[in-house]
Amino acid sequence: MRMYDLIMKKRNCGILSKEEINFIVKGYVEGIIPDYQVSAFLMAVYFKGMNKEETSNLTGAFINSGDIIDLSPIKGIKVDKHSTGGVGDKISLIVIPLVASLGIPIAKMSGRGLGHTGGTIDKLESIKGFKTQMDINEFINNVNTYKMAIVGQTANLTPADKKIYALRDVTATVDSIPLIASSIMSKKIASGSDAIVLDVKVGSGAFMKNLDEAKELAQTMVDIGKTLKRKVVAVITNMDQPLGHEVGNANEVKEAIEVLKNNGAEDERVVALTIASYMAVLGGAYKDFDEAFVNLERKIESGEAIDKLKEFIRIQGGDEEIVDNPDKLPQAKYHIEIKAQSSGYVNEINAEKIGNAAMLLGAGRKTKEDLIDYGAGISLVKKIGDSIKTGDVIAILHTDKKENQVAKILVDDAYKISKNQPTKLKYVYDVIM
Amino acid sequence: MRMYDLIMKKRNCGILSKEEINFIVKGYVEGIIPDYQVSAFLMAVYFKGMNKEETSNLTGAFINSGDIIDLSPIKGIKVDKHSTGGVGDKISLIVIPLVASLGIPIAKMSGRGLGHTGGTIDKLESIKGFKTQMDINEFINNVNTYKMAIVGQTANLTPADKKIYALRDVTATVDSIPLIASSIMSKKIASGSDAIVLDVKVGSGAFMKNLDEAKELAQTMVDIGKTLKRKVVAVITNMDQPLGHEVGNANEVKEAIEVLKNNGAEDERVVALTIASYMAVLGGAYKDFDEAFVNLERKIESGEAIDKLKEFIRIQGGDEEIVDNPDKLPQAKYHIEIKAQSSGYVNEINAEKIGNAAMLLGAGRKTKEDLIDYGAGISLVKKIGDSIKTGDVIAILHTDKKENQVAKILVDDAYKISKNQPTKLKYVYDVIM
Repeated sequence: MRMYDLIMKKRNCGILSKEEINFIVKGYVEGIIPDYQVSAFLMAVYFKGMNKEETSNLTGAFINSGDIIDLSPIKGIKVDKHSTGGVGDKISLIVIPLVASLGIPIAKMSGRGLGHTGGTIDKLESIKGFKTQMDINEFINNVNTYKMAIVGQTANLTPADKKIYALRDVTATVDSIPLIASSIMSKKIASGSDAIVLDVKVGSGAFMKNLDEAKELAQTMVDIGKTLKRKVVAVITNMDQPLGHEVGNANEVKEAIEVLKNNGAEDERVVALTIASYMAVLGGAYKDFDEAFVNLERKIESGEAIDKLKEFIRIQGGDEEIVDNPDKLPQAKYHIEIKAQSSGYVNEINAEKIGNAAMLLGAGRKTKEDLIDYGAGISLVKKIGDSIKTGDVIAILHTDKKENQVAKILVDDAYKISKNQPTKLKYVYDVIM
Repeated sequence: MRMYDLIMKKRNCGILSKEEINFIVKGYVEGIIPDYQVSAFLMAVYFKGMNKEETSNLTGAFINSGDIIDLSPIKGIKVDKHSTGGVGDKISLIVIPLVASLGIPIAKMSGRGLGHTGGTIDKLESIKGFKTQMDINEFINNVNTYKMAIVGQTANLTPADKKIYALRDVTATVDSIPLIASSIMSKKIASGSDAIVLDVKVGSGAFMKNLDEAKELAQTMVDIGKTLKRKVVAVITNMDQPLGHEVGNANEVKEAIEVLKNNGAEDERVVALTIASYMAVLGGAYKDFDEAFVNLERKIESGEAIDKLKEFIRIQGGDEEIVDNPDKLPQAKYHIEIKAQSSGYVNEINAEKIGNAAMLLGAGRKTKEDLIDYGAGISLVKKIGDSIKTGDVIAILHTDKKENQVAKILVDDAYKISKNQPTKLKYVYDVIM
C-alpha cells in the first residue's frame, strides 16, 4: 500500500477501506508517512468527504491508537455528555449531580479550556480544594459509590487524533464534518462510557455557524455511535449568545448552583434539563424524554439535585460551603460596568467576542501554559430580547487586571442594540438519535 | 501575511493576489513555509483551480526564483518549442535544423528523459561525439552563426517550480492544469526565447488523456504567454500511439533523418511540419501557416533541411557521417521479433506500455542515475490501421539485455488487434493561439 495512491483515491472520490484508513493513521503516528502527504490527504477529505463507514473506521483507528479506559467495573449504563464548545457553557456542572441523583453512573473525563471557550475542569478548580486528579481505582470507586466522578484527562487517549488535529490546525482542514465527528467521538468512546449525549452548539459563538451544518455533524456523530455500538443522542442547541448570564469560572459555578437551586437563567435551565433528560433516558431511568424532564425538574425542586452537587464537591475534596455561600468563591478585584450607549433592544451578543474578552480579563488561556484567574469573567446583565435605555448597565467585567481596555471594547462591540424587538430565540433546535 | 490564511482563502474559492502568490513561493523556497502547508495548498488548488491572473503570477514567481537566461545578444526572434511529452517523440530533432534553415534562431535548452518518455538530449547523445554542454557564449555564438544550438539544462532555472513539483509528485497534485501550465511555461520563459510553439500531446501515451483537458491546458499556457509578453501557439497532437515507427534513441535519430530526407512516417512528418510551420510564422519568416508549410516541405525536398542537420551535428562536435550512413549509429546486440497472434487490423498501440518496454530494454531511465543504452529501443513495424496476419512481425525489440521477457509481454500487450478496421487517426486535433 502506498500513501500516494490513497491520497489519489480520496481525491478522485474513492471510498477508503478499513485497512487503508488504518494504514494512514498508523503510518502517520509511527512517522512512516510524512506530514506533507497527510495534509494533502486531509485537504482531499475536506473536499470529498467520507461516508459513514469511512468515518467510523477513522474513529476506530483513532481509538485504537492509544489507551482505552475500561469502565466495566462500574455497575450500570455509564452515561457521558459532550459539548462541541460554547461560551458560558456550564451545562456539565449542572447535569453531573442532576443525572447522578437518579442513580445513573457518570464517569467523566474532561478537558481544560483554550481560547474563547472554557473547560469544565477549570471551572471546578475554582472551588477551593476541588481535586481533578485521582487514580483510576478511586475514580471507579467514586462512581460506584456516589454515581459521579470527574478527572482531568491524563491517559494517553487517541494520540493519532491529537497528531492529526495539530496538522489540521495549521493547514485549514479543521472544519470538515467527518474529521470533526471522528475526533470528538473517538475521544468520547475511548473514555469508556456506554452512552453519550452530545450538545451540538450552533450560532455565532459556536464552531458550527448554521443549523444545516450542525445537523450534519450531529447525524454523523450519531451514525458513528451506531456503528461502534454506543447509544448516542445529539441535541442541537443555540449559541447565538453566551449561555446564561455568567462567563468565566467561579461565576459560572455560582450560576450552575443557581440553576440547581431552582433559580438561574431560563436558557441555561432549559438546555441543562434537556441534556440531562436524554442522559436519563439513555441511562434507563425513564422510558421517554417527557417523563425524564418532569422527574428531573422535581429533583431540582425537592433539593435533591443541589444536595448531590454538595456531595460531588465534597467527595472530590472541594469546599462544599460555597453551595450555600457562593460568595466564598474567588472574587476579582475590579468590577467594571459596561453601559448601553443607546436605547432599544439587545439584538445580538457575539459569543466569540465575549469569550475572547473573558480570556483577556484572566478567565481563560491564550496558550496552554497560561494560568487562570478563577475570579475573572463577565456578567451579562442584559441578554438578547431585553429592553434597555442609554446608560443602563449591560455587562460587568470582573478582573484583577488594570489593563482591560481591549476587553471593554470587545464586550461593547459584542452587543448590538436596535430599536426592533428581536423574535424570541429557540434554546433547543433539534434532537438527532 | 500567514500561509494558513492563504490556504483557507484558496480552499474557500478566493483569488490570490500577486503578493500572496509571491509570499507562498518565496516562503517555500526559503524554507519558511513548511511543506505540509504547501501540500494542503496545492490540493486546494487542485480542487479550486486558479484564474488566468493567478496562473500567470505563479509562473512569474517561478521564473523569478532562479536564473533567467538572457538571449538578447542573439539577433532576431528566438523561437523555442516544447512537447508535453510522448513516446517516440523526435519532433525536436526534425524541427531544429528545419526551422533554422529559414534563418530563424533556435536556442534550445533541453532535458533528459525519465520513465516512459525520452529526452532530446539523450537522443542526440547517441550520435558519437555530440556534445550537449557548452558555455553560454559559445551557445549564443553558435545560434548567431548557424541559427541553432542545443544544450542540456545546467542553469538554475525555476528552482521554486522544481521544489514544488517534487512535492506535487508525492501528494497526488501533479494533474492540475494551472500547476502544469505554470511549471512548463516558467521553464520555457526562463530559457529566454521570445516565441514558443507548444506541442500538447493527447491520448493513451500522453499526460492529457482527453481532448477537452488538452485544450484547457493549451489555452492556459497560451494565456500565460499573453500575460507575460511571449508569443505562444499551442498545437494539440495525437499520442494514442507512439509517434513514427521508432522508439528509443539512436533509432529515433535515424527516423528523424528519414523525415528530413523526405521519407519517414506520415504522422511524424505531418506533426513535425505543423510545429515547424508555426515556429516559422512566429519567427516572422512567413505570414501564415499554409505558406510556411509549403515552403518547409520545399526545404526538405531540396535537401537544405538534411544539410542543416549535418551542420547541426558538426557544430556540436558530432559525427555527421551518420546522416548519410545511419548504420554507424549505435546498434543493439539482439533484435527480437514480436509476431501477431491473430489476424485483423491494429486498433491500438498503448504508447505508455511501449515507452515502458523501451525503458526496460535499456533505452530509458527508471531513476535519474540509470545509464542509457543508445542502441536499445523498439521498432513498431505495424501501426494503427495496418492489416496483419497471424505470424506477421508487428514489432522488433532492440536490446543488449538477455533478460527481456517483461518488455516482450508489454509490447505484445500494447497491441490490440481486432477484425474491425479502425477509422484513420487525426495527427493534429487543434491549434490554440
